[in-house]
This record gives sequence, structure tokens and C-alpha cells, in this order.
Amino acid sequence: MRIMGIDPGLTRCGVGIVDVDGHRRSQFVSVHVVRTDSDAELPARLLQLDQELSALMDTYQPDFVAVERVFSQLNVRTAMGTAQASAVALLNATRLGIDTALYTPTEVKAAVTGYGRADKAQVTSMVTRILNLSSPPKPADAADALALALCHAMRGVGQQRVAEGLARQAQ
Amino acid sequence: MRIMGIDPGLTRCGVGIVDVDGHRRSQFVSVHVVRTDSDAELPARLLQLDQELSALMDTYQPDFVAVERVFSQLNVRTAMGTAQASAVALLNATRLGIDTALYTPTEVKAAVTGYGRADKAQVTSMVTRILNLSSPPKPADAADALALALCHAMRGVGQQRVAEGLARQAQ
Repeated sequence: MRIMGIDPGLTRCGVGIVDVDGHRRSQFVSVHVVRTDSDAELPARLLQLDQELSALMDTYQPDFVAVERVFSQLNVRTAMGTAQASAVALLNATRLGIDTALYTPTEVKAAVTGYGRADKAQVTSMVTRILNLSSPPKPADAADALALALCHAMRGVGQQRVAEGLARQAQ
Repeated sequence: MRIMGIDPGLTRCGVGIVDVDGHRRSQFVSVHVVRTDSDAELPARLLQLDQELSALMDTYQPDFVAVERVFSQLNVRTAMGTAQASAVALLNATRLGIDTALYTPTEVKAAVTGYGRADKAQVTSMVTRILNLSSPPKPADAADALALALCHAMRGVGQQRVAEGLARQAQ
């Protein structure tokens, strides 16, 4: 199964792609950061993000898209942009019939590092190890996007296997 | 010129269409409220809103789309949904090459009633009078969407005429 993790943002939107097998082993595929010009008008930025995410989904054909759930404790202006970027990401996936899930930063950190309050360095370090990368993914948005994909690989696929196992037992 | 005003929201998204002539006389065309089920998943709601706004733009072929600028003083959960709905509205217009503008609630109220702190009843009353409607548009989201279109008719078209006048004087 191919999972695309998206760390939404208007200025920088991280997109990480991993493949995961039935034993929850994850393999790195690719990572991208879509940037839009913070001096440009909002509609133009949304359109650029829309087009670039659409192109990435077309290129990598993910089976699943995991997006970071937007929170409010951030700077309000940033939170609005993040909410709008997440809408663009979810809309693109849903238009293509790709299933999506939203994960909170705490869920992502817990899945990847075992600790919900891990810092960025710990997340980057674990992403690098889990995916056997020769160097840490940069910038932080890239590592976060891969962590989102890994979070779904660990949680989502795990839950799916449990559900399948229960279904088999019930037969 | 045909103007579509959009009062963004995930639960209720008001869409008001007016035609305005060179003398800034506005004529009512249509008003709609797109609703999505608050129990549905976010991606499905975004997709439904996307499809319905796309269909309305296709039907009415607006020359201009005016969208309410999202603010933070609202309930945070509502503000996130509003931000995401506004992204869907702006993206649809921009994809079709339609120019857009964002107006704050204060700008809309001031344009329509002459008073930036007017209440909903005053806005609805003025929208009803300006457009010569036989009864007030309902619900409030419908009146707000028409007020947004009228705001652009009064401000945007006015500014454009001033710019054209200055251009003529300069020749």
C-alpha cells in the first residue's frame, strides 16, 4: 500500500510518500515540499497548491492520503492558511476517490517515536531510522510529511489488519 | 457585470448572484444556500461543497466572485470550517479564471447599510430594499451572500469607474 502524508501549509506544504507491506515494513518513495509565494494573492496560492498536489497524486498514485489535523493553538493567521491548505489536500484526494485520514500532531509523534510530546529532532531522527535514510529529510515539513505517512502505516494498516483478523476469526 | 457573493461555511454556504450595470444599479438574479451534513466526514463535505459551487458557477457564469474574509474572533471550530469553505470557493473561481475579492464583514455592512457595525436585521432590510425584493431573503446566510455581491457592486465597480475616469483624464 502506498501512503502519501501531507503536512498542510500555504507557505510550505510537505508531501511524503512511503510504501508499506503487510508486515508494516515501510519503504521510502519520495518527499517534496510545495512552496507558494507569501506575497502572492490567496486565490493564486490556493490554485498553485491545488495544481501541485494534483500533479503529485497523479505521479505517485497513493492508495491513501494522511493529512495533519489542523489545530487552533497556533498563530491564528497561520491556522487559517493551514486549514485552507488541508482543504485543498483533502479535496484533491477525495476527488480522485482516495481514502483519507486526519491525524493530530500528538498521534503522529506517538506513532513514530512512542512519545506524544516528542520534539521535531526526535521525529526527524525516528523517520530517518524507520525509513533507513542515509541523511535526515529536510526541511522539517518534509520529515513531518513522512511521519504522517508512517503514522498511518503503523496505525491505519495495523487497525486494518486487526479488523481483517477479527473478520477471519468470525468466519 | 454579474457578481456572485459567497458567504462561506461548511454547514451552510450562502451564494447570492446580482447583476450590476454601469450606473451601479443592481438587479437580483438568484440566491442559494449550499448545505452539507455536519455528521458527514470533512473530505465528503468539502467535495460536496466543491461540486455544488462549481455547478452554480457553471449555471450563472459570474464575472466576479466576492467572498467573505475569514476572521478569527469566531468560535475556532467554526472558523476552521469557514476557512476551508472559503478556500473551496476561491479555488473554484480561480480555476475558472474568474477574478475574486475578499471583503470583511465590516466592509460589507458599511457598503450596504452605511454603518460598519450594522446588525443582521439592518443588513437584510437594506439588501431587500436595494434589490427591490418582495420579501427578505432567508436564511441569514442568503442575505449575507447577496450583501457581499452588493458590496462588490458598490465598492469594486465604483473603484473601477474611478480608475477608468482617471485613465480618461490622463489621456
